[in-house]
Amino acid sequence: MTHEVLELLLHRDAVMTEDALRRSYAEDPDLMTLLNAERYSLFAGGKRIRPTLVLEFCRLFDGEDEAAMPFACAVEMIHTYSLIHDDLPCMDDDDLRRGKPSNHKVFGDAMAVLAGDALLTGAFEIAASNTAAGAEISAMAVAYLAGNVGRYGMVGGQVMDLEGEEKELTLDQLLKLHSLKTGALITASCVLGALAAGVSFADERMRDVITYSENIGLAFQIVDDILDRTGDADTMGKLVGRDEKHKKNTFLRFFSVEEAGFYAERLTQEAVRALRRHRGSDALCTLAEWLVKRKA
Amino acid sequence: MTHEVLELLLHRDAVMTEDALRRSYAEDPDLMTLLNAERYSLFAGGKRIRPTLVLEFCRLFDGEDEAAMPFACAVEMIHTYSLIHDDLPCMDDDDLRRGKPSNHKVFGDAMAVLAGDALLTGAFEIAASNTAAGAEISAMAVAYLAGNVGRYGMVGGQVMDLEGEEKELTLDQLLKLHSLKTGALITASCVLGALAAGVSFADERMRDVITYSENIGLAFQIVDDILDRTGDADTMGKLVGRDEKHKKNTFLRFFSVEEAGFYAERLTQEAVRALRRHRGSDALCTLAEWLVKRKA
Repeated sequence: MTHEVLELLLHRDAVMTEDALRRSYAEDPDLMTLLNAERYSLFAGGKRIRPTLVLEFCRLFDGEDEAAMPFACAVEMIHTYSLIHDDLPCMDDDDLRRGKPSNHKVFGDAMAVLAGDALLTGAFEIAASNTAAGAEISAMAVAYLAGNVGRYGMVGGQVMDLEGEEKELTLDQLLKLHSLKTGALITASCVLGALAAGVSFADERMRDVITYSENIGLAFQIVDDILDRTGDADTMGKLVGRDEKHKKNTFLRFFSVEEAGFYAERLTQEAVRALRRHRGSDALCTLAEWLVKRKA
Repeated sequence: MTHEVLELLLHRDAVMTEDALRRSYAEDPDLMTLLNAERYSLFAGGKRIRPTLVLEFCRLFDGEDEAAMPFACAVEMIHTYSLIHDDLPCMDDDDLRRGKPSNHKVFGDAMAVLAGDALLTGAFEIAASNTAAGAEISAMAVAYLAGNVGRYGMVGGQVMDLEGEEKELTLDQLLKLHSLKTGALITASCVLGALAAGVSFADERMRDVITYSENIGLAFQIVDDILDRTGDADTMGKLVGRDEKHKKNTFLRFFSVEEAGFYAERLTQEAVRALRRHRGSDALCTLAEWLVKRKA
């Protein structure tokens, strides 16, 4: 599959996901500020990589989009909540996100905290209400997703990231930080897609899903670190050089830009290898390659 | 049932819940600050009314404690997260909670946001993993709980509360604010207990559960408003007169302390009436009366 075709597919999945997300909101005049604060960040034009992973893994194993869509919405809502809370002044204090002022710059700190809380909560509501997938799969998906984004997952990773600003982490700790902070939600996205298609944790195909997801998750983060050093602020829609400013631990403390690039390539090949034997994995293999070649 | 016996029962349920909560934590040297921040607030000695409601409603309908306990933990974790986020400087800016410095005063704002996020996420994980109740009930419980504490529930109520500081709400808006901010989690606690016992939403007993819970939820909030005006800071473990300081909309803008007291009594009678026909509802009826007589 060419990158152009992949980008069309990403776009189509993004539109589908955004439609479903939009339909999950009902207006309420007493809650307008909250609803607008949530949607400001939710519809700020992200690449929607996580929902695409959910949808594509469900399709790979012959599942229905209808069963995958609530999970696709859930992972995007959780991704958005994490960006809103991470950007807060008490956290990474970022004023710009996806080319627009951060949520708290527009709505204030209190509303940004609450918009994040509501998105996180809404993610579990929509995932638990997945009638197309059924209660068994929904309960499993919520438990797995929550495990991956909670204290021993994404939140834990953010804590290691914040605390790491004051000390030098070992490479092992940095790998753990990123596997929690970025990797865990990417893995959950892939796994939830497979679950929606009826693939269980006991199924050996799930091992390939997890191998793919862990490899692209780490590659994704390495490319993030490279782009923060070498990227263009206009293309990225956010400030570059933030890692240095915040004294973040990045892979570039351990590797040159060139070495880090090779490392990311190598992980991508591992990811592709895990899926190659599955018919119809073209899009996911191309996506893995596209992710390390991205400029933003 | 005398209040002394009820207090023994509350204490026993609190100990059981705290044991289960404690067991849900595994140590991790890289995450110590987060885990300690969560547990600082989780084990700060709350009255554990919400877990007791879960356990007692499950018992009322002949369910097993084992099936109720994950839900009991979940509602207490969500209650604790809401207190941590509400106390943040950008929200209600409270320095004291349950007689101790607030979470952010001890761990800083960033860690308080993250501890809240982790508790909220952990609540859904533990509720979704309720194998004793089964997947069907777990998925239903997560969906209902998330619906009650999200944008159209508790978070929405907090938004109305914050925004209400700048304007005078109508009595209808105040009733809505409290039904979202306090009532929705209390109702979810009662409903999850009944769900754990196998009572479905179609079951007419669920109507009594909801009538009871909505009435005690509102009565609880009215007593809260009264105590903030007339209570003793030492007994309460938090500052009094906060409502006035923050220009909060309270029931005392519409009623005298005496009228508000009568109103709370009346709601309590409604709650008791809804349960009286159910054998074994003694503890829950006494709890309703105890809640309006409390001094903290």
